[in-house]
Amino acid sequence: MLCKVTVSGARRATRTLWLLVLVSLSVSICVCRASSSSLQEEDSAMENIDTEKKAEESHRQDSADLLIFIMLLTLTILTIWLFKHRRFRFLHETGLAMIYGVLVGVVLRYGIHVPRDISNVTLSCHVNASPATLLVNVSGKFYEYTLKGEISANEVDDVQDNEMLRKVTFDPEVFFNILLPPIIFHAGYSLKRRHFFRNMGSILAYAFLGTVISCFVIGLLMYGCVMLMKQVGQLDGDFFFTDCLFFGAIISATDPVTVLAIFNELQVDVDLYALLFGESVLNDAVAVVLSSSIVAYQPAGDNSHTFEVMAMLKSFGVFLGVFSGSFALGVATGVVTALVTKFTKLRDFQLLETALFFLMSWSTFLLAEACGFTGVVAVLFCGITQAHYTFNNLSPESQDRTKQLFELLNFLAENFIFSYMGLALFTFQSHVFNPMFIVGAFLAVFLGRAANIYPLSFLLNLGRRNKITSNFQHMMMFAGLRGAMTFALSIRDTATYARQMMFTTTLLVVFFTVWICGGGTTQMLSCQRIRVGVDSDQDNSMSFGEETERRSTKHDSAWLFRIWYNFDHNYLKPILTHSGPPLTATLPPCCGPLARFLTSPQAFENESQLKDDDSDLILTDGDINLTYGDITVSTDASGAHTSGGLVFAGATSDDLDRELAYGDHELVMRGTRLVLPMDDSEPPFTDPHHRLQM
Amino acid sequence: MLCKVTVSGARRATRTLWLLVLVSLSVSICVCRASSSSLQEEDSAMENIDTEKKAEESHRQDSADLLIFIMLLTLTILTIWLFKHRRFRFLHETGLAMIYGVLVGVVLRYGIHVPRDISNVTLSCHVNASPATLLVNVSGKFYEYTLKGEISANEVDDVQDNEMLRKVTFDPEVFFNILLPPIIFHAGYSLKRRHFFRNMGSILAYAFLGTVISCFVIGLLMYGCVMLMKQVGQLDGDFFFTDCLFFGAIISATDPVTVLAIFNELQVDVDLYALLFGESVLNDAVAVVLSSSIVAYQPAGDNSHTFEVMAMLKSFGVFLGVFSGSFALGVATGVVTALVTKFTKLRDFQLLETALFFLMSWSTFLLAEACGFTGVVAVLFCGITQAHYTFNNLSPESQDRTKQLFELLNFLAENFIFSYMGLALFTFQSHVFNPMFIVGAFLAVFLGRAANIYPLSFLLNLGRRNKITSNFQHMMMFAGLRGAMTFALSIRDTATYARQMMFTTTLLVVFFTVWICGGGTTQMLSCQRIRVGVDSDQDNSMSFGEETERRSTKHDSAWLFRIWYNFDHNYLKPILTHSGPPLTATLPPCCGPLARFLTSPQAFENESQLKDDDSDLILTDGDINLTYGDITVSTDASGAHTSGGLVFAGATSDDLDRELAYGDHELVMRGTRLVLPMDDSEPPFTDPHHRLQM
Repeated sequence: MLCKVTVSGARRATRTLWLLVLVSLSVSICVCRASSSSLQEEDSAMENIDTEKKAEESHRQDSADLLIFIMLLTLTILTIWLFKHRRFRFLHETGLAMIYGVLVGVVLRYGIHVPRDISNVTLSCHVNASPATLLVNVSGKFYEYTLKGEISANEVDDVQDNEMLRKVTFDPEVFFNILLPPIIFHAGYSLKRRHFFRNMGSILAYAFLGTVISCFVIGLLMYGCVMLMKQVGQLDGDFFFTDCLFFGAIISATDPVTVLAIFNELQVDVDLYALLFGESVLNDAVAVVLSSSIVAYQPAGDNSHTFEVMAMLKSFGVFLGVFSGSFALGVATGVVTALVTKFTKLRDFQLLETALFFLMSWSTFLLAEACGFTGVVAVLFCGITQAHYTFNNLSPESQDRTKQLFELLNFLAENFIFSYMGLALFTFQSHVFNPMFIVGAFLAVFLGRAANIYPLSFLLNLGRRNKITSNFQHMMMFAGLRGAMTFALSIRDTATYARQMMFTTTLLVVFFTVWICGGGTTQMLSCQRIRVGVDSDQDNSMSFGEETERRSTKHDSAWLFRIWYNFDHNYLKPILTHSGPPLTATLPPCCGPLARFLTSPQAFENESQLKDDDSDLILTDGDINLTYGDITVSTDASGAHTSGGLVFAGATSDDLDRELAYGDHELVMRGTRLVLPMDDSEPPFTDPHHRLQM
Repeated sequence: MLCKVTVSGARRATRTLWLLVLVSLSVSICVCRASSSSLQEEDSAMENIDTEKKAEESHRQDSADLLIFIMLLTLTILTIWLFKHRRFRFLHETGLAMIYGVLVGVVLRYGIHVPRDISNVTLSCHVNASPATLLVNVSGKFYEYTLKGEISANEVDDVQDNEMLRKVTFDPEVFFNILLPPIIFHAGYSLKRRHFFRNMGSILAYAFLGTVISCFVIGLLMYGCVMLMKQVGQLDGDFFFTDCLFFGAIISATDPVTVLAIFNELQVDVDLYALLFGESVLNDAVAVVLSSSIVAYQPAGDNSHTFEVMAMLKSFGVFLGVFSGSFALGVATGVVTALVTKFTKLRDFQLLETALFFLMSWSTFLLAEACGFTGVVAVLFCGITQAHYTFNNLSPESQDRTKQLFELLNFLAENFIFSYMGLALFTFQSHVFNPMFIVGAFLAVFLGRAANIYPLSFLLNLGRRNKITSNFQHMMMFAGLRGAMTFALSIRDTATYARQMMFTTTLLVVFFTVWICGGGTTQMLSCQRIRVGVDSDQDNSMSFGEETERRSTKHDSAWLFRIWYNFDHNYLKPILTHSGPPLTATLPPCCGPLARFLTSPQAFENESQLKDDDSDLILTDGDINLTYGDITVSTDASGAHTSGGLVFAGATSDDLDRELAYGDHELVMRGTRLVLPMDDSEPPFTDPHHRLQM
């Protein structure tokens, strides 16, 4: 009886808490309103304007606005807890964040009326330039103004009318420069590297070729749509082919965060997971660079919207330059961090280590932006490098700390973006709802995704032994959700009519895909009869049955990959981490001193221990010896290091498979583990250095 | 031999890494310079100003500037690692951050010459008001400008000259609204509550009375100094008595982070530690509110700098209102978080739990700011409440996560502020170095601290049984360092001549105290013969010898405290956390249903288990039974809950001591554990709920 009382008590308590949060949300909206109206009163009352007071009021207003978002996120967290608790799967936290955002947006738009701000009336001052800093002389006193941006002529009235709505509208660059980097870094840092590398060829094909195909298909279709609209007279402004292509680029960035969360929960086939996750991570990078190259397309002639080969080649050059530059920068800072953590004993002080890791990862972004590359892309490759090398050098505590830190940042940033999206549907000032364009866009997005997945899958299946079956293809087609990246790209510039129409349409595409496709994932999975409940490790050991057969195929198809693997294992890992064979074994003898200098003492230790304990290891752990059968072969090979040169050249890509599998154990995919609490199981091997990483 | 090679190799490697970081720092400065000069070229070349391009350039510039600070912090981390590694104690990381900041400041000031920016020349536009938003009409196009602030007439030329230096100068509000809150929250969250509460009376006296005394002593002395300067003709501008008082308030905020780090490392007497830490935490709050009340002092008459009783009373009212409002808000959000974490099963999803905790703590700050209270003060009390209640409801993983998160934020923010301080010494544009004022300030700071510590200690010793000895007093006197809070308060407003002189002087006081007093802490400790190497737990069990004697004294002096303790233990803890006695036992029988509703099922469980296992617990753990002897007494008392009413009213404050001691075990003081790596030892009791918290 007591138990019953407390259970119903808990339910009532939950309801009370909900009420509490709702009340606090409305309080914060009221505070928001109050501080904005107090601003008005004082402004109109006082003739002698006190800058300090005004700045204070503006600060209070900003705090109140931010508070609305914090309350929205809190509400989302509490609701999503309830959903997880009851195992509702039809709505992901991002979808929920959008719903709450929409609700608050409606309240802000229609529920609150702020009287017209009189003193805020613009003092148009006719000058001949728009400098970054403007000094205004008000009866002898100088006030400093900073440039915020250009405003189109028809917006001038809005500026004065909707101060309140403008206040909750953030600078679009916030998304790109503050909220997106942690999300992208986390994606790179939590990449399941084993399955990623196993499917790397297909992932690269989908991400690069697929995104470009999708971009051009959508661009062409939209151009057709725009032409038609012009015929019908539904177009009120300019809309060029480059705009269509730009739209194609930004809408090609997929973000199946909802789908992946469900995949993770239901333990869907790992290869399908890897294909989807890898594609979505990389195509974000491709879409960013692609869109900036399209913007860079500027023919030299008078008409800036004709086709010109030189300008197109220049755009292509920009694409290659920016992508490779960002890639190189990201990898470079990752490598520097790995070196610093390897050669200092920073691991004795976990706080310093974590702080250094965080700062170095952040500096990648800043460095790339300062050099004119794309910070988001650099951060992605930095994350992958950090996970592959630096992570091994960190102390266990720092490994946990860094994972948890970026997991939290990712969670907060993602939900913030999605709730802002919901809000923007009603608070954004210059929406252009054009039904024809919207219908066209939905159709184009569908066809663009189809033109990406099906033809590429067909081509890839020609080379793949482990075919991408048709139900996998349908699932990938279905999982082409649009999310944070598409939004951030589309809100970045909403100055022209075309861009405003794109922004509105993009919002609707994101809403539709996240709610409908995201919510229907479980149905789609069962409809396509895709097996669930696959243990990724079990899957791995199962496939070892057909190992010899598979190896011969892989040997042929993945030669490039094998060369890289050998290089990584023999040179990069030993140089950048404490694991791997000593460089004295892998480098030619002439590099002796350098090799000794670069090799970590731990690597020598590992080696000598391996020599001593080889038989011991093999005898005591029979099952591991079975599963990881040919590790002992490579161990022997490394034992014979006096021969020098490429000892490991003969290692098969299955070695890599196993090594990466170990890495994945260390770095559990946290990003999507929200759906069900996973136990933080340690890798099943007690001392991996002696056995695997050697 | 091999070992020798690798050791010297490691040393060489360290040197290489240093070089690397230095190179990257100079690269970032160069990038900074390059992007700023490219900005110039393009600007002067292009007549037709492209806003987009300009915004992009400005963004690149910002990235480069931020990169300088990231590199500075990285350099600080590497150096401090080396210092810790070699056990140098004369320089704390904050002092080091300042040194590096000064060096980079010198380079930026004298090493880099940016040509005069022509297009940035100000277009003074004579209007009659200074609205928050300004629209500028440039040949038909509208540009939006936002108000940044007022500039004094003599600065107008500087604005145009030193664009580069202005760029690395952050908006002063950044410190107060972004960097300070995590530092202050961390201080509250990591407060060693046992020793804090044991010395609460003294701490409150030092923090409230002491800060006010110090503020007025310094204010009066500085007023004398300013009068003298006026006589000698060394004063070039206005300097009123309120300015002097304001200076007294901001410079009274002590921040002995260096000293506390060394105390923690050397395990100095816990009471001294508690006194210093508690005082520094609370006097920050007092100083903030005090300074804002002084600013609020505005006599109604024509001369706004005369003495007026009503205005002073109003200022006093502001002080009380703002302080108590901030306190109430901070505690309220802490309580709400505790309730949410208690009544939902959020602990099953650690990420959600951590995110909620973070958001709620942040919302305290925003809510306080939006309501016109002081966010920093609210955040402090929120941190203490979270540590006291919410922390008990969190899952162990979230406990770790939240501690580590705020530890990292605190570390980064603190070092950022201190390196910025170093930088500001050379890059700040309106320094007013006045030797006489500076000498006067040093003297006043010294005397103000003395007038705080010695008289108050004398008075406190009249009531304290555990006297504050004279060497403790000297140590406290010596440990009056000034730090982040003083800096943030002084940089907040540097508009007038008086404020600029204050800012310059404050910087010098901070530098001197951090370097000289911070560096001399170990010498001072040995000079004052203060015992080190005291284990806080050992100290506790030692003092149990004189328990009966002590208890009688405490009983008399801490009656207020005891009432609070009983209230907290019987009502607040059971309502807000899963621990404590069931409310059904402590509330009168008429409140039965409410009590059952509010009491956590766990509390009932604890209770029934205690009844069953009482003898078991006492028999199996002899030593614990010895140390925590009279816990069993209070357990019995709670067992007899049928009597209702204030069962625990007779509990002595020693119970609290023990309970808090347990809390401290959970929440190891992370803020200062940087000096030596402490092992993350778990509390020595396997299941505390059954034994202690009950």
